[in-house]
Amino acid sequence: MVLSALGKNELKQMLSELITRYEGLKSQNLNLDMSRGRPCTEQLNLSDPMMENLFRDYGFKSESGTDCRNYGLIDGIPEAKRLFAELLGVSENEIILGGNSSLNMMYDAIARAMSFGVYGSREPWGRKPIKFLCPSPGYDRHFAITELFGIEMITVKMNPDGPDMDTVERLSAEDESIKGIWCVPKYSNPDGITYSDTVVRRFAAMKTKAPDFRIFWDNAYVVHHLTDEPDELLNIMDECKKAGNPDRVFIFSSTSKITYPGAGIAMLAASQNNIQLIKKQLSIQTIGPDKINQLRHTLFLKSVQGIKEHMKKHAAILKPKFDTVLGILESELGGKGIAEWNSPKGGYFISLNTLPGCATAAVKMAKEAGVVITPAGATYPYGHDPEDRNIRLAPTLPPIDELKKAMELFTVCVQIVSIKKLLGELNR
Amino acid sequence: MVLSALGKNELKQMLSELITRYEGLKSQNLNLDMSRGRPCTEQLNLSDPMMENLFRDYGFKSESGTDCRNYGLIDGIPEAKRLFAELLGVSENEIILGGNSSLNMMYDAIARAMSFGVYGSREPWGRKPIKFLCPSPGYDRHFAITELFGIEMITVKMNPDGPDMDTVERLSAEDESIKGIWCVPKYSNPDGITYSDTVVRRFAAMKTKAPDFRIFWDNAYVVHHLTDEPDELLNIMDECKKAGNPDRVFIFSSTSKITYPGAGIAMLAASQNNIQLIKKQLSIQTIGPDKINQLRHTLFLKSVQGIKEHMKKHAAILKPKFDTVLGILESELGGKGIAEWNSPKGGYFISLNTLPGCATAAVKMAKEAGVVITPAGATYPYGHDPEDRNIRLAPTLPPIDELKKAMELFTVCVQIVSIKKLLGELNR
Repeated sequence: MVLSALGKNELKQMLSELITRYEGLKSQNLNLDMSRGRPCTEQLNLSDPMMENLFRDYGFKSESGTDCRNYGLIDGIPEAKRLFAELLGVSENEIILGGNSSLNMMYDAIARAMSFGVYGSREPWGRKPIKFLCPSPGYDRHFAITELFGIEMITVKMNPDGPDMDTVERLSAEDESIKGIWCVPKYSNPDGITYSDTVVRRFAAMKTKAPDFRIFWDNAYVVHHLTDEPDELLNIMDECKKAGNPDRVFIFSSTSKITYPGAGIAMLAASQNNIQLIKKQLSIQTIGPDKINQLRHTLFLKSVQGIKEHMKKHAAILKPKFDTVLGILESELGGKGIAEWNSPKGGYFISLNTLPGCATAAVKMAKEAGVVITPAGATYPYGHDPEDRNIRLAPTLPPIDELKKAMELFTVCVQIVSIKKLLGELNR
Repeated sequence: MVLSALGKNELKQMLSELITRYEGLKSQNLNLDMSRGRPCTEQLNLSDPMMENLFRDYGFKSESGTDCRNYGLIDGIPEAKRLFAELLGVSENEIILGGNSSLNMMYDAIARAMSFGVYGSREPWGRKPIKFLCPSPGYDRHFAITELFGIEMITVKMNPDGPDMDTVERLSAEDESIKGIWCVPKYSNPDGITYSDTVVRRFAAMKTKAPDFRIFWDNAYVVHHLTDEPDELLNIMDECKKAGNPDRVFIFSSTSKITYPGAGIAMLAASQNNIQLIKKQLSIQTIGPDKINQLRHTLFLKSVQGIKEHMKKHAAILKPKFDTVLGILESELGGKGIAEWNSPKGGYFISLNTLPGCATAAVKMAKEAGVVITPAGATYPYGHDPEDRNIRLAPTLPPIDELKKAMELFTVCVQIVSIKKLLGELNR
């Protein structure tokens, strides 16, 4: 029953009942967190055999003969580079392994570009005001990096098959100060969208006024499927090469949500031109990443097939959680015309859109009753959702019984705020 | 017998014999490396019990209750912060733990200062041309960072008790564009000098024209003693506070040469004002360092006393190597008036000064016979030693029998080059 079709008295009656429910839930003193994409304990346990440290049987040696306890191999040990290159669909000389944070590798890529430029730059990016395209809703931590460096962010709409490419192409072709774009191309944060082949090809082939334009392709959820029919993402590196733009893309990923967020391995893939320049700068920046952790990961994960098998165990833990959230969304909000949401086939989030102007109020109400949701607006540049509609739900961390309580409370909040909105009673 | 007192014929006779020795050594096809301060395998073995991963008994939990496998604690786990804060003589809220590379933390500190400024900056350092003071001979990788960022480097002479403070004070007081100085205050690289109390106090108290001047205090060898009578270094943080300049110093260190260079823990200590600003920036830069490695280190090293006991085992391995090098220097070069060197009480290097204009030629000759020494000049900004005298010897990596061969060859090269110099036969 679409709520906007109801009369004022019916709505007021519903509101009254919902407020009673809200107060009842609030009195339970909930303390639940659905704000960040954190793996749960059961997921972390999956990787504990990694800590058996089998490398001791190999004398801590990489296949290259390098003692991983000592200095050396600034871009990673060969067997780990080979494994993760295959995972990302690039060659072994198109990848650099980092520490445990791919966010840090993205930050570094931006920071180096600002100070020194990228391969093909005529000058450092920081010499003049520059801009980034930000498909939104998107990942708040991407936007925080560009904001920190004073890079102007231009919001680009997300379509069901990826960023609105008409806008991306038009702006990139006409404005030389647009130096790049943030993308989460697979199971996007928060929408769970995987970019279509057409979108990937348009990214690879589009004209950019800036000769040193870079796509920051954050493939964070490359193998993070929730179903047996995973989305397929076209290989952006291959497409860029085919289109004659081999240097256009920086691909990022990590094992944060494969093994441990607190002790994983981050990676950057790019053309050899890009990699060679970055390695040169890295040789001044650092003595290199933790190689023992690379050895540990390689011996545990073994192969891309091994990673895929491992990810099925994650999916078995996560799928029921997503189903719980989706079930409650459907039972509480379905058919009422006050919210839309996606059913992702992978990734870490469910993205929900309320009626315009309702997101902030709903998140606030939930927080006041002990359920923390990602702040409304966080999924947009500068934390500003122009329609105040988007809310990101992160179902992975809480146990299912807590998820049920959190979602009941949250959906009650959405209903209360929506009805107030329909009644013209919502304070902005 | 001082060679300069000998006649031409005597020198020529000596030269002829030395060249015969050189050719003999060269024919052995040596392949030895004394170029970098790498720990040897026996040293690495000392920390292998760390890999027993005792943290599994604690459910991977930090004392704070945080699961170290997951996200969180961007500045480090409390027990590791407490341990390393005590090691560096600061409080727990004056330290940030990083990844495995203190060089990377120094690079980041410079990079952030260039892009955003430091606490108290009126503008980013990169907005105008700036300069750094570089006590030399010094650490080539420090100089490489400032060179990369286009920071002009001013060489400052090293005295036996630290940098020439008359020069440091005069330049810092008169030139606002001088924003900082590189220091290795204990067992300095390469001289093995520990700064005197007077030098430390002058650093803390000196006037700087730049209000946001920073001392980059790389305390890399804080517990890296070779003798039972270690040098004592005054606590720069305490002195800066006493002098009313609490925000002046960034202290860096790491466990690279305590546990593993390839998988250690780096740290930055500074005033709370500095730390708070850096933590704010870090929260955008990274999801935080590898916390499991912090847990691993804390459980293995246990306490500052534990670290000190552990370092005695390193010293037991290293002392004979340093003694070997010093013995050969004395027997081959002693009393000949062609070279001077130090006998450090800690650290990783022996610094040798040849006659002016001889260092490059001696290192080149050694390399041609298969012994790699740190390139001459590397210990000066821009790789330029104005007198071409300083050579850094790194005795830690090779086994003693190899060290003997390498040092015999090297000292033969120094003698050949010196005699050619005295004979006026040295080509520049």
